[in-house]
Amino acid sequence: MNELMSQAFVSEILGTATLLLLGAGVVANVILPKNKGFNGGWLLINFGWGLAVFTGVFVAFRSGAHLNPAVTVGLWVADKPFFTVTGPDGMVTASLLPTAGNAAWYFLAEFIGAFIGAVLAFLAYKKHFDEDADPATKLAVFSTGPAIRSYTWNFITEVLGTFVLVIFVLVSGATPHAIGPLAVALVVLGIGASLGGPTGYAINPARDLGPRIAHAILPIKGKGGSDWAYSWVPVFGPIVGAVLAGLTYLALKSFYGL
Amino acid sequence: MNELMSQAFVSEILGTATLLLLGAGVVANVILPKNKGFNGGWLLINFGWGLAVFTGVFVAFRSGAHLNPAVTVGLWVADKPFFTVTGPDGMVTASLLPTAGNAAWYFLAEFIGAFIGAVLAFLAYKKHFDEDADPATKLAVFSTGPAIRSYTWNFITEVLGTFVLVIFVLVSGATPHAIGPLAVALVVLGIGASLGGPTGYAINPARDLGPRIAHAILPIKGKGGSDWAYSWVPVFGPIVGAVLAGLTYLALKSFYGL
Amino acid sequence: MNELMSQAFVSEILGTATLLLLGAGVVANVILPKNKGFNGGWLLINFGWGLAVFTGVFVAFRSGAHLNPAVTVGLWVADKPFFTVTGPDGMVTASLLPTAGNAAWYFLAEFIGAFIGAVLAFLAYKKHFDEDADPATKLAVFSTGPAIRSYTWNFITEVLGTFVLVIFVLVSGATPHAIGPLAVALVVLGIGASLGGPTGYAINPARDLGPRIAHAILPIKGKGGSDWAYSWVPVFGPIVGAVLAGLTYLALKSFYGL
Amino acid sequence: MNELMSQAFVSEILGTATLLLLGAGVVANVILPKNKGFNGGWLLINFGWGLAVFTGVFVAFRSGAHLNPAVTVGLWVADKPFFTVTGPDGMVTASLLPTAGNAAWYFLAEFIGAFIGAVLAFLAYKKHFDEDADPATKLAVFSTGPAIRSYTWNFITEVLGTFVLVIFVLVSGATPHAIGPLAVALVVLGIGASLGGPTGYAINPARDLGPRIAHAILPIKGKGGSDWAYSWVPVFGPIVGAVLAGLTYLALKSFYGL
Repeated sequence: MNELMSQAFVSEILGTATLLLLGAGVVANVILPKNKGFNGGWLLINFGWGLAVFTGVFVAFRSGAHLNPAVTVGLWVADKPFFTVTGPDGMVTASLLPTAGNAAWYFLAEFIGAFIGAVLAFLAYKKHFDEDADPATKLAVFSTGPAIRSYTWNFITEVLGTFVLVIFVLVSGATPHAIGPLAVALVVLGIGASLGGPTGYAINPARDLGPRIAHAILPIKGKGGSDWAYSWVPVFGPIVGAVLAGLTYLALKSFYGL
Repeated sequence: MNELMSQAFVSEILGTATLLLLGAGVVANVILPKNKGFNGGWLLINFGWGLAVFTGVFVAFRSGAHLNPAVTVGLWVADKPFFTVTGPDGMVTASLLPTAGNAAWYFLAEFIGAFIGAVLAFLAYKKHFDEDADPATKLAVFSTGPAIRSYTWNFITEVLGTFVLVIFVLVSGATPHAIGPLAVALVVLGIGASLGGPTGYAINPARDLGPRIAHAILPIKGKGGSDWAYSWVPVFGPIVGAVLAGLTYLALKSFYGL
Repeated sequence: MNELMSQAFVSEILGTATLLLLGAGVVANVILPKNKGFNGGWLLINFGWGLAVFTGVFVAFRSGAHLNPAVTVGLWVADKPFFTVTGPDGMVTASLLPTAGNAAWYFLAEFIGAFIGAVLAFLAYKKHFDEDADPATKLAVFSTGPAIRSYTWNFITEVLGTFVLVIFVLVSGATPHAIGPLAVALVVLGIGASLGGPTGYAINPARDLGPRIAHAILPIKGKGGSDWAYSWVPVFGPIVGAVLAGLTYLALKSFYGL
Repeated sequence: MNELMSQAFVSEILGTATLLLLGAGVVANVILPKNKGFNGGWLLINFGWGLAVFTGVFVAFRSGAHLNPAVTVGLWVADKPFFTVTGPDGMVTASLLPTAGNAAWYFLAEFIGAFIGAVLAFLAYKKHFDEDADPATKLAVFSTGPAIRSYTWNFITEVLGTFVLVIFVLVSGATPHAIGPLAVALVVLGIGASLGGPTGYAINPARDLGPRIAHAILPIKGKGGSDWAYSWVPVFGPIVGAVLAGLTYLALKSFYGL
């Protein structure tokens, strides 16, 4: 791991931890008993996750803020650099290329960060986890689950949601704007509003699996199982969606002559 | 069809498909049984559609992102180019002029894209369409319908909503900002909040007719009729609104000496 | 009236009409029976009004988009130009100075525009006005009214809300950003959320009086009185708030040495 | 106190007063009887506070708009200037360095401003405070309180929320965007959505203690105690969070070689 990759490694951990602290946090607020945001509605959850992305991107300023293995996969397939450092004159002075080695470090950092963020959200809501609640509710703070269990259709929903996210990430540079990380935050908010109904929109393997491991390990009062039977859907659905988005991007680039 | 128009054709299809995947998606989330966003409220629907526009505009970066025949009509009446390509120095290097031929390709792409997007939304919510629900509810995921049926007044509401959208598109270049596609997304959000009550704000012929055809064709469990009796309102209301906005723009341009 | 003032006059009418079409529209959507946004909540109303301002500012691009006599008064007291035209090099080529004559034209345009916008909102929601509803509810689409009637305290609430709006308008140029009209739209959204509880936040004499006159004139089924007894509060409260903000601005400018 | 510090002192008072007028205002709107926003939900409160920050930052344009002793502490620990004045050429012409003396003035201004803002919010909602309501509800307009009382865990929640806010403030300069004060407003909105459940997210000693003093002093009908037993949590929790964020920033700066 060269020096820049080691910095990006820490940056990705911190950004993904922020993502999960705020993302798991908003779910806890809305579904755990006695919270001030209890029963606050789906739009509140969408805002919480969208702004979790927003804040996490700022925190991960030294790694390009993937925060999500699906984003890493999308960039890898599309052959785009994972992160570039530019000098004061705007010239690229260093970069992390989309190699298997770098991708592995990004994945590891994303999972570690997601795990840490989920633990921090657990600490922020500790007294509310100590209240009586359905074990499935306590798990839902950490990981996604299907509204109607059907691995095939749940998988398809995750593929579609992640495809939208990753294709946005890949093509967004072509449209001028100056809202910075707000753009991707709004797209995540929108995906949650529009495609989150059936599966709770993981659209990010680390966001789901890291916290699921935390759920399995943490001493949560009255917890049940971690629903490992479902756990592959929010990992492989997003990866397939990301690969499809990367391939679509390559096809468009060629067709548009860019 | 020249090369740029063929690229724009694909771009419009992809952008309008994204619009409908996310737009029909948010309606499905809010009104189909067992969804996590069930009964999430009108503002959630407004956000879903606004951010569907936002995301769709990014995806349609090679066509100017009309995503809506009413926008195409408005630009045509106002004699503005449908799309311009600029070089690195900001000079226009190619453009699609507002001709009848180009308009026809845009219309076709918008309807095809809307059809595809509705099919994708159906797939994302397949298990929820399989649940028992009122046939009118299942139709409402695809197409708009009146809260109180009155073709005359429903038409007027669609004219007014579309007028606001298209006049915004035509005059927005006069006001400096750097929020890019967020501006039109917010205007659509606002039109939904403010003028969506009576008809569900089609304000876009493709958004309504494309998915209505999809509804008629798709094997949706327990579906009813596609309400063809109403289907002309969300097609011709928006077109009339767009023509009026285009004419208003021309009058203002002349009066303001621009 | 010189040529630029005549253009600004039309621009203010159109912008304020847009403001009221969308602003009265969102209230109609939330409180009139059978609407799709019925009972959609206070935040929906806040978004509707905020984005009504957003859209109206774009429409009124040839007048500086006051849309509100309180803004005109604030600029007048602060001795700031009502509108400036800049050439391609950024130099001011023409302006409307804060004179009594220009202020009078702005006021007139704002009231006419607000009246027109309220009539258009009535047309958009005609079938819902035909439904049975409390006369006070039908009035509330047009004009504000107090939650607890107390002319003194209602007046104070309107003074405070308008003070915040106008001081923002006067000092916002000192803080860099590129979000354009979104800034004032968000401030209006915020004032509605935070100070709208007691009086429904007129914070704009034209927004309240113009539609109140429309309510008195229009053939609204089952309408009651137009509550003229209260009508002076949302006119003079905002004016006092604007004068105080203008004076505060002058004091700060002097104290900060700007 | 030099001239610039005296200007910043006034600026901080005005900005923090705006923050509390709008922040306490939205809580009053949602929880005090008979308000138009009564029971408007947690997201409405989050928007109110986020836009209170947004507006307050514009008002405090002559002090860098800390509005929060935790921000002042964070900058102090990170050794960043409290405020810089730049000339037309972008060169720094004056600044307020992070000294103990300047910090003391900032703290004092923030507490005075928060006190004044709470009094103004009381005046805006006077008639609603006169209604019958639980004494705890009336206190909740002014100050935060725990959903489940546990000084240790409430403290931890405040540390985490403030850490996120202050680390964002310290690193946000590294990520390009042009949305200005909207960025910090959205982060505060997000922290409220995601970490506000257990304690109501003070994340700002002045925001909590200033209004608590106002509550103790003001002649509020039917008020109860000011819950001084809890008052240290929202003061020292945020300070600890800010110190940790400042230290984290210093470590990252060193590790990233910035």
